[in-house]
Amino acid sequence: VLKLEVPEVMHHSSNEAMLRQLLALGPALVTYVVTFLVAGGFWFLHHLTFHRIGHVDGVLVWVNLIFLMLVALLPFSAGLMGHLLVHPVSQLFYFGNLLAIAMVLNVHWRYAKRKHLLHEDDRIETIRLNVRAGTAMAMFAGCFCTAIFFPAFSWLPIPLLLLGGLILERRRTAQAG
Amino acid sequence: VLKLEVPEVMHHSSNEAMLRQLLALGPALVTYVVTFLVAGGFWFLHHLTFHRIGHVDGVLVWVNLIFLMLVALLPFSAGLMGHLLVHPVSQLFYFGNLLAIAMVLNVHWRYAKRKHLLHEDDRIETIRLNVRAGTAMAMFAGCFCTAIFFPAFSWLPIPLLLLGGLILERRRTAQAG
Amino acid sequence: VLKLEVPEVMHHSSNEAMLRQLLALGPALVTYVVTFLVAGGFWFLHHLTFHRIGHVDGVLVWVNLIFLMLVALLPFSAGLMGHLLVHPVSQLFYFGNLLAIAMVLNVHWRYAKRKHLLHEDDRIETIRLNVRAGTAMAMFAGCFCTAIFFPAFSWLPIPLLLLGGLILERRRTAQAG
Amino acid sequence: VLKLEVPEVMHHSSNEAMLRQLLALGPALVTYVVTFLVAGGFWFLHHLTFHRIGHVDGVLVWVNLIFLMLVALLPFSAGLMGHLLVHPVSQLFYFGNLLAIAMVLNVHWRYAKRKHLLHEDDRIETIRLNVRAGTAMAMFAGCFCTAIFFPAFSWLPIPLLLLGGLILERRRTAQAG
Repeated sequence: VLKLEVPEVMHHSSNEAMLRQLLALGPALVTYVVTFLVAGGFWFLHHLTFHRIGHVDGVLVWVNLIFLMLVALLPFSAGLMGHLLVHPVSQLFYFGNLLAIAMVLNVHWRYAKRKHLLHEDDRIETIRLNVRAGTAMAMFAGCFCTAIFFPAFSWLPIPLLLLGGLILERRRTAQAG
Repeated sequence: VLKLEVPEVMHHSSNEAMLRQLLALGPALVTYVVTFLVAGGFWFLHHLTFHRIGHVDGVLVWVNLIFLMLVALLPFSAGLMGHLLVHPVSQLFYFGNLLAIAMVLNVHWRYAKRKHLLHEDDRIETIRLNVRAGTAMAMFAGCFCTAIFFPAFSWLPIPLLLLGGLILERRRTAQAG
Repeated sequence: VLKLEVPEVMHHSSNEAMLRQLLALGPALVTYVVTFLVAGGFWFLHHLTFHRIGHVDGVLVWVNLIFLMLVALLPFSAGLMGHLLVHPVSQLFYFGNLLAIAMVLNVHWRYAKRKHLLHEDDRIETIRLNVRAGTAMAMFAGCFCTAIFFPAFSWLPIPLLLLGGLILERRRTAQAG
Repeated sequence: VLKLEVPEVMHHSSNEAMLRQLLALGPALVTYVVTFLVAGGFWFLHHLTFHRIGHVDGVLVWVNLIFLMLVALLPFSAGLMGHLLVHPVSQLFYFGNLLAIAMVLNVHWRYAKRKHLLHEDDRIETIRLNVRAGTAMAMFAGCFCTAIFFPAFSWLPIPLLLLGGLILERRRTAQAG
């Protein structure tokens, strides 16, 4: 679970001092909200893929342990980010962590498909999960690369890709209807 | 989970010093108890509404992620409150957090009703949940507004509304009997 | 969850310094082990009573929220104890917390019995749970009272009552056989 | 759950200072990854044995509480290790903790077998669990002994025994095929 820490200096302070201290928590709050929603998205995708998987073998257990380990590392990466929002090192660590989670999620899903561990053959749902897991990976790869060259714009790929995905999905639904 | 911290200075201290340090934790303890019971009430309402919901769609998943995010923020808000019990900034943050949780709970419940995601049609139970979720929102809206003008009395709306609710419910049961 | 903290001074220290620091954690370790086993015992009793309870009403939900709240307070009480093992204030807080948990457990169990919320009528199992929940309460009442007058012997009632319980149970089994 | 802490000094620091601070977290990161995977392995073994166990008696409940207590102690042991990677005291504590977990797991499994608490008689699966639980114990006993005499090589028994186990299992599968 993510955690925001109450500043120690806050005892018996004036309104202005207290507001200033809360505003200094701004980067931590932004990171908290984004990380919570991103982790929720990963949990949802993980839940959707596991809903399709009927059998579990030893390899899948270890892949999922690594998935959990990388998710459990998120509070640390988010902590770095919360301290220094526009800093190349914290950005590479943070987006590197998110990219690694997305990559392990794709490995987990592709392995389950290739080994025929899915318990029913729903082609449309399979394609949809392919697209979603792939999009998550592309999104954080984009953030990671942007963080190397333009740290100030590293959050941009997230809304851009989500917008593109929404437009694509609408066009498809229109064609199907 | 909420957490109380053991004061660092407490090693090898006399009885009086130790009692003084424990008494200084008073605001934190009061906030701990109130927050735990309020969070329990929210969890109970959330559980009751989900008991009625048969299907879950993508929007509901995201609404519930935001609900969880706001609940996970409670230890921070309670920490502010525990440091400064009668301070406008900490009170607005704390009651703002509780009000936001109550509002998202109402959105979640209304969305499920409007989209016909409920799996059986129990009118009396639906009305009861409407009243309960609405009361929670009214209560914390009351606390939030009181905190702006009379910070010293911001806890008052909670017992007042609970008392009013109890009287109303008794009168109804008497009419039905 | 209980937590032991790694001493900050421990970086780059000699064997003797490190051992001395670990030995200073002695009281914390003793409290950790005892608290974990006691909390496990409470969890087990809570599980056994809930196994017998068929219906849950509003009162029972709130009683159990208070139960959980007191259990969630244990890390704080254990932290006080871990700092000062033979100190009246920390002992009264610690055993007071355990006594309160045992009392709420008895309230929860008696309320469920009186309101006929149990889903089957197994008299022997009911009596056994009466005895166990009562013993837990007697034990921590004993610790609490001993802590007032003889803080150095406050842990004693625990093994004494467990031993007495074992002897009684053996005698009964012998009579039944 | 394991936890890495963000260094306090990290606010507003240069790239080089930040990288240096992250590199100083090296031992903590190595311990984090190893401990997470080892704890995952224990959880998997525990899950597999419990899958075979049909009935649970009082003794088994207490053995499992001790198992959980030792697992909950891992963050502390890993914290010692993360502070001082090649130090006899932290190594003996860390591998002692892992060895104790493996021993309690073996006691839990042997007790369930001897008391006939298994709910079906699958001999091959039983032998496989014997070997796995035994291997875990041998592995950490090896680490513990190596830590006494050659602290610098204490991690070695882990890959050696896993490699030996893999070769043995392949040979068996080849004989069976």
